[in-house]
Amino acid sequence: MYIGIDIGGTGIKAGLVDENYNIVVKDSIPTPKETYENMLNGIIGLAEKVAFAGGLKLSEIESIGIGCPGSVDDKKGIVTYSNNLDVPYMPLGPDISERTGLPVYVGNDANCAALGEFFALDEDVENFVAITLGTGVGSGVVINKKLYTGFNGAAGELGHTLLAMNGEPCTCGRNGCWEAYASATALIRDTECAAKENPDSVLSKMIAENGGKANGKTAFDAAEQGDAAAKTVVDNYIRYIAEGLINVINTFQPEVVVIGGGVSRQGDNLIIPLREHVKKYVYGSLEGVPIGDVRIAKLGNDAGIVGAALLGVNK
Amino acid sequence: MYIGIDIGGTGIKAGLVDENYNIVVKDSIPTPKETYENMLNGIIGLAEKVAFAGGLKLSEIESIGIGCPGSVDDKKGIVTYSNNLDVPYMPLGPDISERTGLPVYVGNDANCAALGEFFALDEDVENFVAITLGTGVGSGVVINKKLYTGFNGAAGELGHTLLAMNGEPCTCGRNGCWEAYASATALIRDTECAAKENPDSVLSKMIAENGGKANGKTAFDAAEQGDAAAKTVVDNYIRYIAEGLINVINTFQPEVVVIGGGVSRQGDNLIIPLREHVKKYVYGSLEGVPIGDVRIAKLGNDAGIVGAALLGVNK
Repeated sequence: MYIGIDIGGTGIKAGLVDENYNIVVKDSIPTPKETYENMLNGIIGLAEKVAFAGGLKLSEIESIGIGCPGSVDDKKGIVTYSNNLDVPYMPLGPDISERTGLPVYVGNDANCAALGEFFALDEDVENFVAITLGTGVGSGVVINKKLYTGFNGAAGELGHTLLAMNGEPCTCGRNGCWEAYASATALIRDTECAAKENPDSVLSKMIAENGGKANGKTAFDAAEQGDAAAKTVVDNYIRYIAEGLINVINTFQPEVVVIGGGVSRQGDNLIIPLREHVKKYVYGSLEGVPIGDVRIAKLGNDAGIVGAALLGVNK
Repeated sequence: MYIGIDIGGTGIKAGLVDENYNIVVKDSIPTPKETYENMLNGIIGLAEKVAFAGGLKLSEIESIGIGCPGSVDDKKGIVTYSNNLDVPYMPLGPDISERTGLPVYVGNDANCAALGEFFALDEDVENFVAITLGTGVGSGVVINKKLYTGFNGAAGELGHTLLAMNGEPCTCGRNGCWEAYASATALIRDTECAAKENPDSVLSKMIAENGGKANGKTAFDAAEQGDAAAKTVVDNYIRYIAEGLINVINTFQPEVVVIGGGVSRQGDNLIIPLREHVKKYVYGSLEGVPIGDVRIAKLGNDAGIVGAALLGVNK
């Protein structure tokens, strides 16, 4: 049995994960604030709790894996920077290993989610990319069945490759990143902007009824009701995702790419037009080069826990 | 001893490469046209010639490696499509292996060049990217010391990731690819365009003196003479290369990235501003994440021969 920990800005989730990569116990706590000691105690306490709920002592666990937002030195097990947390520098790997006597692995949260989705695939593949469309565009890359993190642990930041030089400002300090167009945040921005420009639209009415705020579903819902302004937002948004996916495929040519995050609940409404656009513009498409499958992610919110738990298995 | 073959649209180059990855004999022929049989005979004849010049029979060679432009199924050793050659489909691996009795490996030419540059590095690195700025933007990726080609042999087409959605048309059918901005072809286009817009510039004069045609050096030369129009062309061009390099680094975080092709002869004029721009905008730069070194490629035109020869070693 493994324990997977998924650290977020508001909560920490933990799961006891079995040898078949299934979560058998799950629990969570609010993210401990202010001190690193609180964070350490919170994680270790939560780990003990899920082990106990599964009938195990912590000493009977194979390893603990931790996914954390920000920059992670995965070789040393250190979170070197995390702008979402009060404590940006955290040597979680060595410290938790010392206190529990267990092997402890630490990875970037998007990489953990990718690893979870990789282990959840039905087929046996070598190369794989997972994209999570949320507040940002998260991504993780698996190459030759191993998580790929580059020499400094920071590789696979596909959300921070360009869609449009000099384009929309991105949180990373650059302009025009994929994230600035294909994240749920970007979709909401574009939805609210289209509503303002089209005050008589269904879109505008839906947003007004929701207290002036759009969410990641608003444009899709209004488009389904035939609203032209919403349809333009959705079409553009799908195009933005597709353009980034073409970059991903031209770069990695993985057997499978999965799309996760809240927007992925759109299912076929999203994936069918995405596949069409990708197929048309991917490099070599005219030459009959086969391309990998683009599909919706399977595990969703649990991917981070499962992937973190499997960091040790994937070493 | 290995033999490396570098197939181009106008000529085929071959080299006898020793165990220290040095070319000991080099020769070339014009690319045989019209039939596949001519191509096969040309390659085998040239291979025998360089072996003989090195005092060896072909049967004493370890393996033959072949780099070819276009789409290559490197697992099967087949060129599946090459728009630069009269014969687009060529099962070179099995056919040359059958006729010579030697192991024969086939790779994409840009991948071979990357492999050559990788073996030429002074230091021991795991992950590496080579970019060649020529007619197009060629690229090859080495991960965990092996050439990375994806499940279909077509990965690492970094020249066909976006710089600007809806931007300049690219040869691949997409608009706004890195290649459409950072290739020598794009530099020449932008140079000639700037000269037209600035008829009194040094740039315009230099092009007129050259029969109305610019080349990859023109803008750099005119900028060195203080020409403002040329300086803008050069600054933009370096920015285009840099933006793509940031994408490459955010994706792969390799220890080393090398820039090759004719433009790389600009040396420090190119590499110093490139490094500055990359350092400023790469993901995590504000968090003190270390990044790999960006430098000029070492082997230049010989990289393709050396890399092809080493395809077998790198399997």
